[in-house]
Amino acid sequence: MRPLTDSPIARDGKVLILAYDHGLEHGPVDFEDVPATMNPETVFDIATHEAVTGFAVQKGLAEAYYPSYEDDVNLVAKLNGTSNLWMGEPNSAVNWSAEKAADLGADAIGFTLYGGSNHEVEMAEEFRDAQETARDKDMGVVMWSYPRGQGVKNDTKPGTISYAARLGLELGADVAKIKYPGDPEAMAHACDAAATTDVVMSGGSKTNDEAFLRTVKEAMDAGAKGLAVGRNVFQRENPEAILDGLEKVIFEESSVEEALDAVEGNGKQATLE
Amino acid sequence: MRPLTDSPIARDGKVLILAYDHGLEHGPVDFEDVPATMNPETVFDIATHEAVTGFAVQKGLAEAYYPSYEDDVNLVAKLNGTSNLWMGEPNSAVNWSAEKAADLGADAIGFTLYGGSNHEVEMAEEFRDAQETARDKDMGVVMWSYPRGQGVKNDTKPGTISYAARLGLELGADVAKIKYPGDPEAMAHACDAAATTDVVMSGGSKTNDEAFLRTVKEAMDAGAKGLAVGRNVFQRENPEAILDGLEKVIFEESSVEEALDAVEGNGKQATLE
Amino acid sequence: MRPLTDSPIARDGKVLILAYDHGLEHGPVDFEDVPATMNPETVFDIATHEAVTGFAVQKGLAEAYYPSYEDDVNLVAKLNGTSNLWMGEPNSAVNWSAEKAADLGADAIGFTLYGGSNHEVEMAEEFRDAQETARDKDMGVVMWSYPRGQGVKNDTKPGTISYAARLGLELGADVAKIKYPGDPEAMAHACDAAATTDVVMSGGSKTNDEAFLRTVKEAMDAGAKGLAVGRNVFQRENPEAILDGLEKVIFEESSVEEALDAVEGNGKQATLE
Amino acid sequence: MRPLTDSPIARDGKVLILAYDHGLEHGPVDFEDVPATMNPETVFDIATHEAVTGFAVQKGLAEAYYPSYEDDVNLVAKLNGTSNLWMGEPNSAVNWSAEKAADLGADAIGFTLYGGSNHEVEMAEEFRDAQETARDKDMGVVMWSYPRGQGVKNDTKPGTISYAARLGLELGADVAKIKYPGDPEAMAHACDAAATTDVVMSGGSKTNDEAFLRTVKEAMDAGAKGLAVGRNVFQRENPEAILDGLEKVIFEESSVEEALDAVEGNGKQATLE
Amino acid sequence: MRPLTDSPIARDGKVLILAYDHGLEHGPVDFEDVPATMNPETVFDIATHEAVTGFAVQKGLAEAYYPSYEDDVNLVAKLNGTSNLWMGEPNSAVNWSAEKAADLGADAIGFTLYGGSNHEVEMAEEFRDAQETARDKDMGVVMWSYPRGQGVKNDTKPGTISYAARLGLELGADVAKIKYPGDPEAMAHACDAAATTDVVMSGGSKTNDEAFLRTVKEAMDAGAKGLAVGRNVFQRENPEAILDGLEKVIFEESSVEEALDAVEGNGKQATLE
Repeated sequence: MRPLTDSPIARDGKVLILAYDHGLEHGPVDFEDVPATMNPETVFDIATHEAVTGFAVQKGLAEAYYPSYEDDVNLVAKLNGTSNLWMGEPNSAVNWSAEKAADLGADAIGFTLYGGSNHEVEMAEEFRDAQETARDKDMGVVMWSYPRGQGVKNDTKPGTISYAARLGLELGADVAKIKYPGDPEAMAHACDAAATTDVVMSGGSKTNDEAFLRTVKEAMDAGAKGLAVGRNVFQRENPEAILDGLEKVIFEESSVEEALDAVEGNGKQATLE
Repeated sequence: MRPLTDSPIARDGKVLILAYDHGLEHGPVDFEDVPATMNPETVFDIATHEAVTGFAVQKGLAEAYYPSYEDDVNLVAKLNGTSNLWMGEPNSAVNWSAEKAADLGADAIGFTLYGGSNHEVEMAEEFRDAQETARDKDMGVVMWSYPRGQGVKNDTKPGTISYAARLGLELGADVAKIKYPGDPEAMAHACDAAATTDVVMSGGSKTNDEAFLRTVKEAMDAGAKGLAVGRNVFQRENPEAILDGLEKVIFEESSVEEALDAVEGNGKQATLE
Repeated sequence: MRPLTDSPIARDGKVLILAYDHGLEHGPVDFEDVPATMNPETVFDIATHEAVTGFAVQKGLAEAYYPSYEDDVNLVAKLNGTSNLWMGEPNSAVNWSAEKAADLGADAIGFTLYGGSNHEVEMAEEFRDAQETARDKDMGVVMWSYPRGQGVKNDTKPGTISYAARLGLELGADVAKIKYPGDPEAMAHACDAAATTDVVMSGGSKTNDEAFLRTVKEAMDAGAKGLAVGRNVFQRENPEAILDGLEKVIFEESSVEEALDAVEGNGKQATLE
Repeated sequence: MRPLTDSPIARDGKVLILAYDHGLEHGPVDFEDVPATMNPETVFDIATHEAVTGFAVQKGLAEAYYPSYEDDVNLVAKLNGTSNLWMGEPNSAVNWSAEKAADLGADAIGFTLYGGSNHEVEMAEEFRDAQETARDKDMGVVMWSYPRGQGVKNDTKPGTISYAARLGLELGADVAKIKYPGDPEAMAHACDAAATTDVVMSGGSKTNDEAFLRTVKEAMDAGAKGLAVGRNVFQRENPEAILDGLEKVIFEESSVEEALDAVEGNGKQATLE
Repeated sequence: MRPLTDSPIARDGKVLILAYDHGLEHGPVDFEDVPATMNPETVFDIATHEAVTGFAVQKGLAEAYYPSYEDDVNLVAKLNGTSNLWMGEPNSAVNWSAEKAADLGADAIGFTLYGGSNHEVEMAEEFRDAQETARDKDMGVVMWSYPRGQGVKNDTKPGTISYAARLGLELGADVAKIKYPGDPEAMAHACDAAATTDVVMSGGSKTNDEAFLRTVKEAMDAGAKGLAVGRNVFQRENPEAILDGLEKVIFEESSVEEALDAVEGNGKQATLE
């Protein structure tokens, strides 16, 4: 366990991971709202925003683009993932060895665990190997802890989310990415369950600015150490604006209103330029 | 086979393992009775009680907390385990390599075997690897020997419990953790079946002080060399008190009444302070 | 990711891969139209045509013939493949280790991924190993990205083809071989989805000269960087003629009509000789 | 193939293996007739009888007791085995690596193969690894060749037993342990089928002295080179007596009557002492 | 690919492999016609006939007998095989590592591939490993290419046989052993399909001298480079006689009548002695 204060993917102990593995997990359909985001350069550029402390991509994108961005972006090497053409019980192929991620200069690894899937045991053992290599290579460890599959009827039930957070702690992740369980008390419980493992909220599908920022604020107040977000940033016309707002909420303890001002200020600024 | 007299997780040839892998195996629900126990520090502190000869946790907890407790706690590295979201035949992911457990300074490994499960063969082969590495690295070997699954109709039947104890011996565990089979004769038979492998009783779900201590006493008198306990300690308001009582029964050959006095004495003492 | 401008299997950043693994994938039945093509020498000779920038074969053919052609042919080592006697979910055996392909002097590896098959996860992990070895050994990486199996109802649907192209990018292929999705807009979308991964159109079953060249021209205009073709070349009586035409379309930005002239010119020339 | 004349587990080319893996394969129930046999020391002591040329136990027993008996007992390291809680197709976990068996000083390895089980292929490949390591480490190889499972309707049919014996030869065992097929002609055929691989009869469930000795005598006369026996020795009140009798039949070409005299002599002697 | 002209298992570019793995594949029942053949010495002696260019056996037989015959017999190490007690989809255990076969002095490896079986992919990958090791160790590679299982309705259909021959070529075998497809044209097509991989006809069940020699002659005339035969030699009373006949047909381009004279001449000679 490496405390976030020491981590290259944190700023003042807080984390904002921009995730961009949707091309693998969901396919190009996720880029339809903002077609420019199909081009990884667009999203690598977004990732240089100073609020973004880590950028999570699959091996292919990292090989092709990270060398040009390594001074401006911290790399979270998302080691596993699978297309949504897959019809079996939830599972994720390990597409990238942790060793090669280290060779490319990754600051942390990202790894999905589907607790409750009939592949849970197999995925946990793959996580073990990746986590132990990450320790050897001095990379951080972020777990996408998503209960799913035969054993999970409701994957946003508070008890399930708290369990997901705890799995991050028990199995040795520095950071656990979990879904927001719907209310601050439940989120606080999940953060407590994770103890020294820092919890980041998963951004989920796109919502409006205020609703999104309010939820992030609730999560932070409940004990989360940040956010891992994809579509709620890159599916917006002005992703920098929402990042300005997130920066306020996550790193500056601002109110939702202040954050909304920042979003709108950026919007105007963009208009004025 | 290393005799308990030489083992770092024994005291005068007796063992009291405090197990705290419930966050993985059962989830945060096990911490509801005493919410402070969700914080691993609370339970690591309990583990510094002089009656506790070994503390069993998963990799993540050990990485995060053991370095601060290594002078006061003997580490039993619980290598495998699975969430109870898992709906398949009983199985356990190997979440921690024995090599890494040794690197962290573990005194012993803990490993679950579900005899009778359709995964028994696979788990036994994983145990082989862990056990052989433990021998190389001079760590003790504790088997959680729990018959379960398709081949097991009644997992507390005396014959099944004695078989479980014997599996510990046959496969090379120093200590076999088994369920209490219900009466002293059956326990004595199980201890005989284990021969040089020391048997420890599994604490099970929480019961009242007297019933619990009486069962432990019965087990000790029947030949057990100690106890591996979790909920019956950390789900109590005053875990130190029950540990005082267990110390009497396990290490000092005291009667149940003397042990209850110790529990209550601690309780009063706690009140007086 | 190695740009095609640097790649030994490209010419001016374009690619024409002649594929000849049909003896494994379909069996000798594919050689019935032109019986001479059952003899690999016939097709190795075709592969020396200057338009062919890479020749894709399985290990056995490479071992037997490539040493005699290594000055005139660039080898794409097709590492996996399976006979069509196979009745299970789409899968491909890895018949050739990437290390041995490098030893033989391969310029690139070729690897099939059946996204959506129940073997997708397994194949993706085998691809990982091959791709990472290819990087170490400085070989290019070509993915045959063919969604197929339980998760795929229509494998030429534009969305599926674009997803296939994107998988090449995400997983670390330099070149993704995809089916033509039926119209130029869909092909352009697929090429965009692949970003820096170059897209080559799969030749498919034999069609007439004009229809074939017109489709290739459409694909090139839509952003494809070339073609990977087998039957549409070697099942023709005069494969050199169609290669002359393809050379026009792929490398010289010629019109379909100019390309057809080249095909016919070669035909006449062949008649005159 | 190492001839028995050279083997440390033979005496004058004959073999008497005492097997004591029943605690794993059947559980403590096999020790009920003679409760002292639950204690491995009791049976290790029996194994020091000069008629016993090899003693077969699992890893745990060997680790715990063999160091004290290594001058008086030849160790047959029984590498695989499974509890009878297992309800799947016949299978055996490899509980002990051949390398570690060699480190402990094993003279031979013992390995079960269930021909006809749906795990036959897997078990044969595990046997390959163990057998090849045994060759490297100069240990003998004993196969428990027991057809069983989906492909086997009658496991004592002569044709099946001869096939079992032949599997020992074909796959590289020095000694094949088979069931007695019921009559001397069938046993002779099985011994012929095994050619240079020596055949030993499996002792099976307990029978009376005369019946047992007569069967062993028949087997020896039919070409067997000895016996591998467990319950028919250690489930007797006076195991040394039956070993005296077996010594006559196996090593001294005595008649059944002479052997029975030896058994009874020992019995009287025991009474006289 | 090593041309047969260089191969230690060829004579003038032709091959006659005597196969004797029937004890594993079929069991002792195959030795009933000529009981002496149950003794491997009998068949090793037959293999010293000068017409036999390679002798194919499993590991156990090779370890036990080959050292005494290594000056007179070329060893084809049959690496995989399974008993016919096996009831699953066609599969073959790898009973012998290619490395150990090389250590024993094998001239070539033999490997079965069941194209069309649900285990085809697994077997092809095992073949890959064996074939690549054979290349490293300078051993020849013979594939028993036998389509069988769920994907194969008729395993002697010409198209299937030609496909089998082609699989040998594509996957890197020097020699492909296939069944005779019933007529010379089909055999010629299969030989063409195999290109540089030499085709040998599988001997099959015992037939009479003339029918057998006539089929072999047809196969040779059709392009086969020889024969791999077991029962049609060793199930005969005078195996040397039929080998004399086969020598004529395979190596001396004799007519069937000349070959029959050789068979009968040997028979008389045998009678005269």
